[in-house]
Amino acid sequence: MKALPIEKVARVARRATGVTSAQRKVPEETPIALSYAGTTHAVMMASPADLEDFAIGFSLTEGIIARAEEIETIEIIEAGAGIDIQIRLKDKANTRFQARRRRLAGPVGCGLCGIESIDEAMRSVPEVGKAKITLSSWEIAQSVRDLSNHQPMHAATGAVHAAGFYLPEKGIVAAREDVGRHNALDKLAGALVRDGQATSTGAVVVTSRVSVEIVQKTAAIGAPFIIAVSAPTALAIRTAELSGMTLVALVRDDEFDVFAHAERIEFGEARNVA
Amino acid sequence: MKALPIEKVARVARRATGVTSAQRKVPEETPIALSYAGTTHAVMMASPADLEDFAIGFSLTEGIIARAEEIETIEIIEAGAGIDIQIRLKDKANTRFQARRRRLAGPVGCGLCGIESIDEAMRSVPEVGKAKITLSSWEIAQSVRDLSNHQPMHAATGAVHAAGFYLPEKGIVAAREDVGRHNALDKLAGALVRDGQATSTGAVVVTSRVSVEIVQKTAAIGAPFIIAVSAPTALAIRTAELSGMTLVALVRDDEFDVFAHAERIEFGEARNVA
Repeated sequence: MKALPIEKVARVARRATGVTSAQRKVPEETPIALSYAGTTHAVMMASPADLEDFAIGFSLTEGIIARAEEIETIEIIEAGAGIDIQIRLKDKANTRFQARRRRLAGPVGCGLCGIESIDEAMRSVPEVGKAKITLSSWEIAQSVRDLSNHQPMHAATGAVHAAGFYLPEKGIVAAREDVGRHNALDKLAGALVRDGQATSTGAVVVTSRVSVEIVQKTAAIGAPFIIAVSAPTALAIRTAELSGMTLVALVRDDEFDVFAHAERIEFGEARNVA
Repeated sequence: MKALPIEKVARVARRATGVTSAQRKVPEETPIALSYAGTTHAVMMASPADLEDFAIGFSLTEGIIARAEEIETIEIIEAGAGIDIQIRLKDKANTRFQARRRRLAGPVGCGLCGIESIDEAMRSVPEVGKAKITLSSWEIAQSVRDLSNHQPMHAATGAVHAAGFYLPEKGIVAAREDVGRHNALDKLAGALVRDGQATSTGAVVVTSRVSVEIVQKTAAIGAPFIIAVSAPTALAIRTAELSGMTLVALVRDDEFDVFAHAERIEFGEARNVA
């Protein structure tokens, strides 16, 4: 098993009982470039782990590839203060990506005007409304409990996000952690593809809030259900509603809020407080 | 007073006592483009509020301008699904920015290779070690308590971040909220500049974790002290150490951890637990 990307640091702890010097584990954070055909597409501050999953998952959820087979090679290069992930796409996918890049490139540098950039950020989200999954209240509670068993970095540091994939009767079948919540989800997407995991019968479970990008990426994965520990934004709710995605958030044991497509939930008997 | 960027949505609430339909307030989230000389530099998902502060603060903390006076005009334009902030820089600043943009632009599109992109992300951080501020344990606890009095969006939704500026004897003198923690800090930077607030004698207080970008932006503001509710990354700690910045995190009442430059803290008597 690989070492976790965490580091022990010295710190001064002020507690009710006094001031002491002691060590604490904190997550590592590294600038990671994702480069296609030798040119950087994005740089993210991320946990330096699961980098092949990251390359595949990011390429998928950002619509650069439609299937993992469109990637020819992935090379991971230590590059000064960071890591450069060099991705080569196969012929057709590369041609498509270069055309998109030219379309996005205006007269100066990256060169989009405001409206074009906003349209790109708000690209339409795949429809996932036909997926037939139903989850009970117990399963929703169980998915979050089970995810916590797959968070070794968080257990050590208390400071990283996780994204997991939950299947009824199987529980969490894959999970990834990262200092960034979007990165955790991209890494999960890559892991699911590498495992050949079907995604239309399960739920993405995240420890974070739900922004529109979490909904966009979940739809790109093909999953029709998000379960989140924290709250969603209004735009995330509207986007989930449109794409046919069930959005459950603010899960605390078997209490939770449903913000879109509640028809996929069997609420069952609420337990009695008495 | 302007309306907060929040929205009431319908949701199904499952509680121990039963399942009900009711409304809940959630934060709005909008793609916001920051454009210079007509070309987009970045698009962020952000809370649609305090947009002039955002334009000034982002320009400063990203090193596009050195002083607010280098901005000629700021125009806020509704652009389809989002907002385009059009910024015109004055002659010298514009020339400098266009030169930087050309330098960053390679043969294809944005065209940086991995190492160049990583170097840009890890640009050196201003030195703030000479600032003479000292804070007591009580003041650190007080800064976080006081910030919570400046979080109306969070009070309504429980789901947005805040960044505030704390001065000894004055408390929190400015604060901004956003769905994104970096945006909240950028908006605070803009607000401080517009108020003509000196920054070397105070502390930036954030409700979030501390990534390296939070340290970079705080140093760009000129503040020598960060107080954070949540945990830092290893890279954030190393960067704070190098720039001479005091980094306090994991604040719970008057208990906290100090990860860099503890010499600026008067720990005082810890209270007795009995």
